Amino acid sequence: MTTPHSNAALIAVDWGTTNLRAYLLSVQGKILDQRSCPGGVMSVQDRNFEAPLLSVVGEWLMQSPVPLIAAGMIGSRQGWREAPYLPCPARIDVAAKQLTAVPFQDVAGKTHQLLIGAGVQCRDDSGLHDVMRGEETQLWGSELSDGAVCILPGTHCKWAWMGRSGEIQKFRTYMTGELFALLTKHGILGRLMKPGQDIEAFKRGVLLGKNDSAHASHIIFSARTAGLMGTLAAESLSDYLSGILIGLEIGSSLKMAGALPAQINLIGDDELCMRYAQALQAVNIQAVRSQSEATAGLWKLAQSAGLVRS
Amino acid sequence: MTTPHSNAALIAVDWGTTNLRAYLLSVQGKILDQRSCPGGVMSVQDRNFEAPLLSVVGEWLMQSPVPLIAAGMIGSRQGWREAPYLPCPARIDVAAKQLTAVPFQDVAGKTHQLLIGAGVQCRDDSGLHDVMRGEETQLWGSELSDGAVCILPGTHCKWAWMGRSGEIQKFRTYMTGELFALLTKHGILGRLMKPGQDIEAFKRGVLLGKNDSAHASHIIFSARTAGLMGTLAAESLSDYLSGILIGLEIGSSLKMAGALPAQINLIGDDELCMRYAQALQAVNIQAVRSQSEATAGLWKLAQSAGLVRS
Repeated sequence: MTTPHSNAALIAVDWGTTNLRAYLLSVQGKILDQRSCPGGVMSVQDRNFEAPLLSVVGEWLMQSPVPLIAAGMIGSRQGWREAPYLPCPARIDVAAKQLTAVPFQDVAGKTHQLLIGAGVQCRDDSGLHDVMRGEETQLWGSELSDGAVCILPGTHCKWAWMGRSGEIQKFRTYMTGELFALLTKHGILGRLMKPGQDIEAFKRGVLLGKNDSAHASHIIFSARTAGLMGTLAAESLSDYLSGILIGLEIGSSLKMAGALPAQINLIGDDELCMRYAQALQAVNIQAVRSQSEATAGLWKLAQSAGLVRS
Repeated sequence: MTTPHSNAALIAVDWGTTNLRAYLLSVQGKILDQRSCPGGVMSVQDRNFEAPLLSVVGEWLMQSPVPLIAAGMIGSRQGWREAPYLPCPARIDVAAKQLTAVPFQDVAGKTHQLLIGAGVQCRDDSGLHDVMRGEETQLWGSELSDGAVCILPGTHCKWAWMGRSGEIQKFRTYMTGELFALLTKHGILGRLMKPGQDIEAFKRGVLLGKNDSAHASHIIFSARTAGLMGTLAAESLSDYLSGILIGLEIGSSLKMAGALPAQINLIGDDELCMRYAQALQAVNIQAVRSQSEATAGLWKLAQSAGLVRS
């Protein structure tokens, strides 16, 4: 039994593919309490989304029946209910008008609703659709604007360009994290690799990927030949491949945008952001970590929707 | 018990990662008999390479103790004995002087030797090593020369440029087959796919990959968003992704070589070559199947080495 939080105003839920993280926020938007469980969208059984949600927020709700707002894959087709995608440029105040309400009952039979934020979509110059769910809320929470570029590393890494008043102007997904995992865990490149770190090999990979981004499926193979030919030690190959894949993002973004700013913002976990900071440093771009709290975007979205006081 | 082949002159062995294929050739280089087993390099237990070899060629050897010549991954570090890599431009007569002999005994205790052909390596403009083992022999067997470009589709697809007198001038590996397998079998892209064919989606992917080869890890993600957004049916996504990956090869080769010939040669199995022919057709390049026999290269190598009459 936790202490009652008389000050509670909102439950903010970051509900992704793997995890469900919930935060009880005060009327000032500060975190009073937080809980999580591995009840991500992909692990939910028989579409019983109530179960993991109540396991995490049930006690809070009994004490303070505050509004609940969520972002992430919970709003995808595989999630609880499909929330729309806003087109780019995408503004938080537009998103606040399009929350998707999902009613559910707590253990006492009282009805609440989870308000799921919209995702964001855009089309690139080739007409390709791109989508994000969850990252848009982090971007809005970051307060970045005026042409700032922001990278959110991960399985499907996002690069976002922010507009004058903090809208998401455009963004791009790169499958970097997934490709790295597939190539090293299931592919032939992993066979020559031994655990180890090599920052120089990483940087060499970054420059190669950036400069030769037109030759991706060829240069990735060099993570094998460098091992076969002994130009890199087995312990260096993993960092080299990681560098190539991140370098490909940089090269592609450079070609797409014409130029990159001298400074790029990073949102994400420490280890991944450090890796991206090193990659950016190798191409003379300064990396800046976003300092906003994980809940900043959901809090702002709730404010914009009138769920809490501004 | 097979008929004795009094006319036998050579045993040609195509020994790869997965399979071992052996051919008994006549003094004219014609196939008298052929046998194979799944005794590829990766399936050999305790480095007992004799076992699968004898299971396939043992009977032939008892009847006609002819020379044995081999190409493929059997000459790799994971193979029976590591054969050298010839640098590009790589000529068959140079390879013929560098066969790697591995002695072994037949069941009667008589010693023979397997002569393993060298692989070929080259370095691209970025200084990256590239390697092939087995494909070089197919290329020499194809009799292509004078700037001909040849594609050998597969897990690690090779593009080769042939020199004036049939030497391998340069080549490039693309991880197309492996990437396709990893992304569809183990990755998130496979989740939206249903079995099916769609030649138009395939061609759309080819053009996208060719034109946007600088953005590989971004455009591959469109095989997910096209499914999410309903711009392609679940049954079309596999061909679309396949098209993108082959298109990436075309785009990269174009950028590397400046231009591609109006006609490109294909060596490989029917289904894969048909797929590449369709991809090339989508970018107005005519595909020509190589008509030489699978054993032509090993026969020529043996001739050049003086193992059989020219």
